[in-house]
Amino acid sequence: MASIFTRIINRELPGEIVYEDDHALAFLDINPKSEGHTLVVPKFPVASFDALPPDVLAPLMLAVQKVARAVTRAMNTPHYNLSLNNGGPAGQVVFHVHFHIIPRHEGVRTARPPLRLSNQRMTEIGKAIREAVEP
Amino acid sequence: MASIFTRIINRELPGEIVYEDDHALAFLDINPKSEGHTLVVPKFPVASFDALPPDVLAPLMLAVQKVARAVTRAMNTPHYNLSLNNGGPAGQVVFHVHFHIIPRHEGVRTARPPLRLSNQRMTEIGKAIREAVEP
Repeated sequence: MASIFTRIINRELPGEIVYEDDHALAFLDINPKSEGHTLVVPKFPVASFDALPPDVLAPLMLAVQKVARAVTRAMNTPHYNLSLNNGGPAGQVVFHVHFHIIPRHEGVRTARPPLRLSNQRMTEIGKAIREAVEP
Repeated sequence: MASIFTRIINRELPGEIVYEDDHALAFLDINPKSEGHTLVVPKFPVASFDALPPDVLAPLMLAVQKVARAVTRAMNTPHYNLSLNNGGPAGQVVFHVHFHIIPRHEGVRTARPPLRLSNQRMTEIGKAIREAVEP
């Protein structure tokens, strides 16, 4: 059974996609801990970070960097948490490797429970990040 | 002024080093959120993840994977959080890129405040991780 991320990659499920290349896809987290909270996933479906083949890992990390730079520009802050939860007891819910990029601002904690953003706001944020991706 | 991580790399400060190659160093976090909490740093000193050159990023991530596998074997759990704090408001304290690998066990939260482990326990954990690194 394909993960929900594979179904987003295949356009079988909707997602506010902000970046795509041959190896990776990035889209907004639907339960954001801050505005601009973005996930970056390899197209190759692997559950565990430590099991990623080198030829998947290298382009994935270049995509993470590229998306992180776009997120910092779009959200107007250079600060972020980058995180990956590996295994259920670590908080992994979707068993397809994914990095979280969570923008941070001075003096502002991450949201718990997550933010509830309108569809319009998600679309605005997605557009801002897409437009901030370097060519 | 060299960061404390550069000083650990240069053996000017002590550290419970668990892995080293030409590009990266890994050592135990002295404020562990769980037993086996390990940091992986590039030898090349850069403050921000998104500023890492590609030829530093790729070998760094291979080292992170290798160390993550050793940590899971040594600490007897496949689960961990992988995280990187980028910028002071995101919780970065040492301005030299570092990934945290934090082992997780079913039903156990990360320690806050951090664990206080004896020198003997830190040495035991370091030895176990070093011995679990694949050749």
